[in-house]
Amino acid sequence: MAYQKPLRFDILAKDPSTGARRGRLYLAHGIVETPVFMPVGTQGTVKATSQEELVEMGYQIILGNTYHLYLRPGPDLVAEAGGLHSFINWQRPILTDSGGFQVFSLEHIRKIGEDGVVFRSYVDGSYHEFTPEKVMQVQSQLGADIVMAFDECAPYPCDYDYARSAMERTHKWAERSLAARDPKQSFFGIVQGSVYRDLRIESAQFVSSLDTDGIAIGGVSVGEGKELMMKAVEWVVPYLPEEKPRYLMGVGTPEDILDAVVRGVDMFDCVLPTRLGRSGSLYTSLGRINIKNARFTRQFAPVDPECDCWCCRNYTAAYLRHLYMCDEILAARLATYHNLYFYARLMENIRKAIDEGRLVDFREEFLAKYKAQLVVETEIPNEDETRRENNNEPRAKRSYAGARKTQRKG
Amino acid sequence: MAYQKPLRFDILAKDPSTGARRGRLYLAHGIVETPVFMPVGTQGTVKATSQEELVEMGYQIILGNTYHLYLRPGPDLVAEAGGLHSFINWQRPILTDSGGFQVFSLEHIRKIGEDGVVFRSYVDGSYHEFTPEKVMQVQSQLGADIVMAFDECAPYPCDYDYARSAMERTHKWAERSLAARDPKQSFFGIVQGSVYRDLRIESAQFVSSLDTDGIAIGGVSVGEGKELMMKAVEWVVPYLPEEKPRYLMGVGTPEDILDAVVRGVDMFDCVLPTRLGRSGSLYTSLGRINIKNARFTRQFAPVDPECDCWCCRNYTAAYLRHLYMCDEILAARLATYHNLYFYARLMENIRKAIDEGRLVDFREEFLAKYKAQLVVETEIPNEDETRRENNNEPRAKRSYAGARKTQRKG
Repeated sequence: MAYQKPLRFDILAKDPSTGARRGRLYLAHGIVETPVFMPVGTQGTVKATSQEELVEMGYQIILGNTYHLYLRPGPDLVAEAGGLHSFINWQRPILTDSGGFQVFSLEHIRKIGEDGVVFRSYVDGSYHEFTPEKVMQVQSQLGADIVMAFDECAPYPCDYDYARSAMERTHKWAERSLAARDPKQSFFGIVQGSVYRDLRIESAQFVSSLDTDGIAIGGVSVGEGKELMMKAVEWVVPYLPEEKPRYLMGVGTPEDILDAVVRGVDMFDCVLPTRLGRSGSLYTSLGRINIKNARFTRQFAPVDPECDCWCCRNYTAAYLRHLYMCDEILAARLATYHNLYFYARLMENIRKAIDEGRLVDFREEFLAKYKAQLVVETEIPNEDETRRENNNEPRAKRSYAGARKTQRKG
Repeated sequence: MAYQKPLRFDILAKDPSTGARRGRLYLAHGIVETPVFMPVGTQGTVKATSQEELVEMGYQIILGNTYHLYLRPGPDLVAEAGGLHSFINWQRPILTDSGGFQVFSLEHIRKIGEDGVVFRSYVDGSYHEFTPEKVMQVQSQLGADIVMAFDECAPYPCDYDYARSAMERTHKWAERSLAARDPKQSFFGIVQGSVYRDLRIESAQFVSSLDTDGIAIGGVSVGEGKELMMKAVEWVVPYLPEEKPRYLMGVGTPEDILDAVVRGVDMFDCVLPTRLGRSGSLYTSLGRINIKNARFTRQFAPVDPECDCWCCRNYTAAYLRHLYMCDEILAARLATYHNLYFYARLMENIRKAIDEGRLVDFREEFLAKYKAQLVVETEIPNEDETRRENNNEPRAKRSYAGARKTQRKG
């Protein structure tokens, strides 16, 4: 399909009593109904699932990680294959991030400057430099429908001065990214500013002034907690142009998504449904469960009686638990499918509720059920770490604070 | 479906110039066309694939391992679920082995006697005893269409005296297994006798004298090599009743299967297509390849141009290689599917060739292509070990000889 640029975003409906919007994105590779959740395909595959299964579940867009794809298999190879769509055989829209999130949380950052970041590959130890221009070139080679500006995602906690300088760098890099972007691709800017209201507003105003196709709120889901995350959304949204799509990066739980949708966010991505699925944690209409729990040993019924996914239509909780206890690949497959299906249905229901002007009721009903009977048998393991690690699956386990230290030395 | 016993086996055609037979098995859960290859579902799942995919590929029967299912999730739980078919949601025929192969190759055998074997669970260290009666009871609880007699699979190498005593024990256990079998299930006896012609013939005669529904040739594929394996088949087959199905346990490569089919074997099972798939080794019409080889880095074409499987229709060798280099689950999925599809098509072509009286030609053509251009980039890693380990995936890595020593001490 030929590229069609700039992106078109139609707002089809607005919820009467919240900030929620029901929209439709027209991208080079197809249409995306919003609010939308984008599964994370870090290395050109959404872990444990297949492209055919994603289509079957109704997903219209997935995310690819520029940082990972840059290192493996490399942008030249992807370009030679005809771009990421062709390389991975996914013919629907793709969004690639800028690699900023990953590169700033790396152990082996060697040098940070105003121009960019020198880092060491976790694959083979080689040195590489990411600049706004380089990152836009890589994203052009990958050929995603939507590309992101190169930004610095400030860690949490982060003092005011550092948050300001990171934000200012992000703004300069946004301008350079914009200048270097491939005009065939849709381009999103990223609002930073950490947990500081004035910085968030300043950043929102600056990014809104740029000629972007959409705007992302970055630097959230890095360990700041739900309350500060929602504050960031509340501070930023009033300063964003109504007509552009809004993307909250790396978020989140079903509750987070509902909370952000009512605050006017249109797009989401998160590794939670896939990562938690692989560890045996499954979303159900009655809350999140850990399938390894002994109480499922003899549950010869589906994981979620209300679910009609491939897993729940065909297999019992008892069988799934058995597969987990034996560390079988089918366990990860079934749970990943189930969780992604759960997210797909959640977003579908959110869109329907906005269409019908009853989002508040839907949210209340969903959460009443999801939380009232909720037996969270495992908390999200290292929730902060999970959030921080979002989009950065194979990252070395270490504290962001340590990375920061290295960075400042650089 | 109600049990229908004894099994019916119709021989539909015989190849005019070889011993090959084209048959049809009628079992409790459906029909199986022979010669047939049975994928190995060790722990109630054929690794990296799904039951739906096996149906899609055309598989009519799979194998389950009694030893593994006995330990996890346990026969009581499987029975409570309504049997293995219901527990794993596979509504077509299943064959369960007797656990003899696994239990005799275990590290923690504590006591071997004429009555049975005491062994330690590799899961939790607990002690268990397998006797013929116990094994038949477990297989009854699992509810497979075809169950196997409890046997002792002699190792290789094995001296004559030990081979004889193991064979004699196997014969006594066969009688006890037969007496204890669930009459609703089809029952196969197992011929042993190691690499000794007179023992093989004696065993074939003895097992043929029993009231079984089919006969297996066991104790092959334990490291004796292809030549001795085919000798065992040649020694045994003339003494087997024409009208019963013949099953060569744990075999094998495409070449092995062709060689055994022309010698009159009807049924096969092997972990090779699944295990090799997970390690990146793929069967193609031009031979077996290692997808991790650098020459596939830019092969933007399917793994096998002649293959129309899910993997080859949708994905390139370059993408599959990338997935392997990144250790992604989709790599194991695609390769397993491809290899099982290759085996399914091989068996389909073998059956068709027998139907049409041109098996010799087919075999020649297949092998000429498969071997002429063959670049075996990796030998089957530890081929002997792979064969020996067949049906015993999570077994501790140690020499069979050591197990034997322990056994003799017992």
